Amino acid sequence: MSLKEGDYVLLLTSDEKSYLVEIKDQDFHTHKDFLNLKDLIGKTYGDVIYGKKGEKFYILKPTIYDFIKKIERITQIIYPKDIGYILLKLNIGPGKIVLECGGGSGALTSAFAYIVGEEGKVISYEKELKFQEVAKKNLKKLGLLHRVIFKNVEVLENFEEKEVDAVFLDVKTPWVLIKGSWEALKGGHPLGILVPTANQVSQCLSELEKCPFIEIEVVEILLRHYKTNPERLRPEDRMVAHTGYLIFAKKVFEK
Amino acid sequence: MSLKEGDYVLLLTSDEKSYLVEIKDQDFHTHKDFLNLKDLIGKTYGDVIYGKKGEKFYILKPTIYDFIKKIERITQIIYPKDIGYILLKLNIGPGKIVLECGGGSGALTSAFAYIVGEEGKVISYEKELKFQEVAKKNLKKLGLLHRVIFKNVEVLENFEEKEVDAVFLDVKTPWVLIKGSWEALKGGHPLGILVPTANQVSQCLSELEKCPFIEIEVVEILLRHYKTNPERLRPEDRMVAHTGYLIFAKKVFEK
Amino acid sequence: MSLKEGDYVLLLTSDEKSYLVEIKDQDFHTHKDFLNLKDLIGKTYGDVIYGKKGEKFYILKPTIYDFIKKIERITQIIYPKDIGYILLKLNIGPGKIVLECGGGSGALTSAFAYIVGEEGKVISYEKELKFQEVAKKNLKKLGLLHRVIFKNVEVLENFEEKEVDAVFLDVKTPWVLIKGSWEALKGGHPLGILVPTANQVSQCLSELEKCPFIEIEVVEILLRHYKTNPERLRPEDRMVAHTGYLIFAKKVFEK
Amino acid sequence: MSLKEGDYVLLLTSDEKSYLVEIKDQDFHTHKDFLNLKDLIGKTYGDVIYGKKGEKFYILKPTIYDFIKKIERITQIIYPKDIGYILLKLNIGPGKIVLECGGGSGALTSAFAYIVGEEGKVISYEKELKFQEVAKKNLKKLGLLHRVIFKNVEVLENFEEKEVDAVFLDVKTPWVLIKGSWEALKGGHPLGILVPTANQVSQCLSELEKCPFIEIEVVEILLRHYKTNPERLRPEDRMVAHTGYLIFAKKVFEK
Repeated sequence: MSLKEGDYVLLLTSDEKSYLVEIKDQDFHTHKDFLNLKDLIGKTYGDVIYGKKGEKFYILKPTIYDFIKKIERITQIIYPKDIGYILLKLNIGPGKIVLECGGGSGALTSAFAYIVGEEGKVISYEKELKFQEVAKKNLKKLGLLHRVIFKNVEVLENFEEKEVDAVFLDVKTPWVLIKGSWEALKGGHPLGILVPTANQVSQCLSELEKCPFIEIEVVEILLRHYKTNPERLRPEDRMVAHTGYLIFAKKVFEK
Repeated sequence: MSLKEGDYVLLLTSDEKSYLVEIKDQDFHTHKDFLNLKDLIGKTYGDVIYGKKGEKFYILKPTIYDFIKKIERITQIIYPKDIGYILLKLNIGPGKIVLECGGGSGALTSAFAYIVGEEGKVISYEKELKFQEVAKKNLKKLGLLHRVIFKNVEVLENFEEKEVDAVFLDVKTPWVLIKGSWEALKGGHPLGILVPTANQVSQCLSELEKCPFIEIEVVEILLRHYKTNPERLRPEDRMVAHTGYLIFAKKVFEK
Repeated sequence: MSLKEGDYVLLLTSDEKSYLVEIKDQDFHTHKDFLNLKDLIGKTYGDVIYGKKGEKFYILKPTIYDFIKKIERITQIIYPKDIGYILLKLNIGPGKIVLECGGGSGALTSAFAYIVGEEGKVISYEKELKFQEVAKKNLKKLGLLHRVIFKNVEVLENFEEKEVDAVFLDVKTPWVLIKGSWEALKGGHPLGILVPTANQVSQCLSELEKCPFIEIEVVEILLRHYKTNPERLRPEDRMVAHTGYLIFAKKVFEK
Repeated sequence: MSLKEGDYVLLLTSDEKSYLVEIKDQDFHTHKDFLNLKDLIGKTYGDVIYGKKGEKFYILKPTIYDFIKKIERITQIIYPKDIGYILLKLNIGPGKIVLECGGGSGALTSAFAYIVGEEGKVISYEKELKFQEVAKKNLKKLGLLHRVIFKNVEVLENFEEKEVDAVFLDVKTPWVLIKGSWEALKGGHPLGILVPTANQVSQCLSELEKCPFIEIEVVEILLRHYKTNPERLRPEDRMVAHTGYLIFAKKVFEK
């Protein structure tokens, strides 16, 4: 399958720096070399292309993981280690209707939109217009803009939607939206929350106890990279120590 | 949406033990109470049903996470913390063709089948017939059996498929299948491997170096649960310390 | 150096179960075999002794680590992973005067008493007499009872001591003793606190901010054991996920 | 107790940068302010001193932890999280004779020398003279040089010492010294090893199996710092992911 104008590729230099680029008539410069991106037309994922100075560039298929890592961001984004777990806990799959509040730069929105497919839908609330504009650009790159309904609204109490399959909250004071999330959800369906501090976890737990939510779970996920020398296998020297605490619960009609 | 015979529900007791059950004319006993499962007909997810002794059972929508946790297993299964990350790294989404080798009891197979949707397909190799029989039962429960092509074959070198979107290996000696995985993959597309020991990681890395694979990553993921008392927030006393090392790479046509 | 009556040894069976025993005329039974402990007299650490059924017992020198792990306990004890770090942060060494409050079963007391040597001293407050009786028995086994001044007192505000080299608090509401700890400490010297919950950490931090304490540090320590098969190196399946949060600070005369 | 010339103090600026300095007639400059160090004479630990521009400096007692963190280093040093655990496992206490090989810049040597007291002794082998010169300088700062016997020798097989209380190896190929460590140790006493890679762990384990060593343990220790805002308690964003694997075993005369 030959690459064509408008396709996105992940370009990898010989020292494994990677760049997410769109194929169009434009020069692209790295610390190693440069090339005109239209020269990618007719190539295939997996091919090598040479820069003007003779450096190799590997042409890779950008995965949803790559899109998230390379996303244009003006907010803290949610990490793949957390997104993967959120997808499973919230039961995100083709055809699902997912509501998120605090869409930010659109990292999680992208993953949701990718997985719900053509039959599904993501409703993304974000009170900051400039964040949402970035999110829209990111979703457009992925070709998934049509799967997302963006709402530039600050929700104070209730969402406009009912009977959604899952709700995710990534805002400063998620506890004020827990009752509203309950209203929006289908019975027996899951809510997810991300907060950076332990104090916020306590506040969410207190609020969850007041509403008919059960199967409450609080977790944190740590990801450790290893150096890839087979003769000297060992973890990297440093790692991300914390992104946030994840909270999950399911709506019931009475407790 | 009323529940009907054949539907699966997650039943939760008041002390939060959960059970994945199919609605049919059958008594269901727990340490707390019992009920006849056909009494669930006409109820809705989120409802409460009372057992014969008056105990509450919450009726919840089983998520893909729940299905994986409650899967019938005769092998070590892959954990949700790892599955979530694998989905993103392997770019699993609606319409994808995924090949896995070492399907085991079908935990990862279930997640793949759930996410690829009606247009996608999972090819699942497993040399042990009795493992594959269990996997088939598990996929049937999920209603996703038709999305999986099961192959009860021990692959020694090459897979029958070409141009698949992703390959995942969960076998004892994955290094012997790395070349075969390369042959099966589309250019620029991802391979994933799970191995429990550091020695196996080294052997895989040595083999990956010999083939045109790049962007090699080795990670491990740790998940820590917290107790959910808001006044006494703290991690659980014990946790799973290790499930396996995850290895990822992408195929290129030359290195 | 021959072993004699009254010495303590760590006996290890062939399947590596270990037992801390005192040499005296008494039968000692394990799941493997039994022996009379006076038969250890005249042996040396590192020797093997055979039980009455012919099973091997290895005679090992009990380390301070072993004493702590084998301590008689009626309270939650502090773990070696935490104790080691506490020793360094509190600058415990020969000749130091250390005050602890909440001595419990005496695990940390033992480590302190071991390290401060004959010239040092440990003052150990504990309001529960029955805990302190156990701690005394444990210190006696180690031969270090004379290095500890036990005080069976509930401290409400201030300690009787002044100018101590270090203070450690392991009580339910350590924040009420932070001012008292400041009074007891030498200028520029360290305070340590252990608490199990995040809420307690916040309360301690709030109180530490009000007193002239600086260089405040909060940490948690995770220890992961590996299986020792060189051909199949991998972490143990499960681990201790949490013991407590450690808080440290140093006293200054003004902030 | 008034400070005098030659004493070491930890100077802390108002933004909590810390500096280990010796009191002598010399100007000391930081990003905040400067002062002449002889002005510290007559002050006490815990006091505040003002710089020439009016900035506060807190005068703290340097702990052994501080000395280790501020050590002059030309090699990778062992971290306090690991040192604390090593001390307990190797049973380091007043009066002990400890042998280490691969002394490097002297971080662990310092901790050993501090804890063994005036009656104990540390024998420190290091083949690189320039490393050992740095270690000597560091021990001198601590006033503990007389407790260490430095040997600038590359040990190929056996140490000159016998009947030592503990041995610690921190060299590239510790497995070649395991038999020699066995020879040097008292019966029933502990050996410790630090290695950065999993491959080295496997090699050490293979060698330990060949010698009469038992109670073999492999661990790794992770330390996570928290931000100290009580209203927003959360781990720091990043952490050290790996320093090394620790291996411990005890010598027996036969297996």
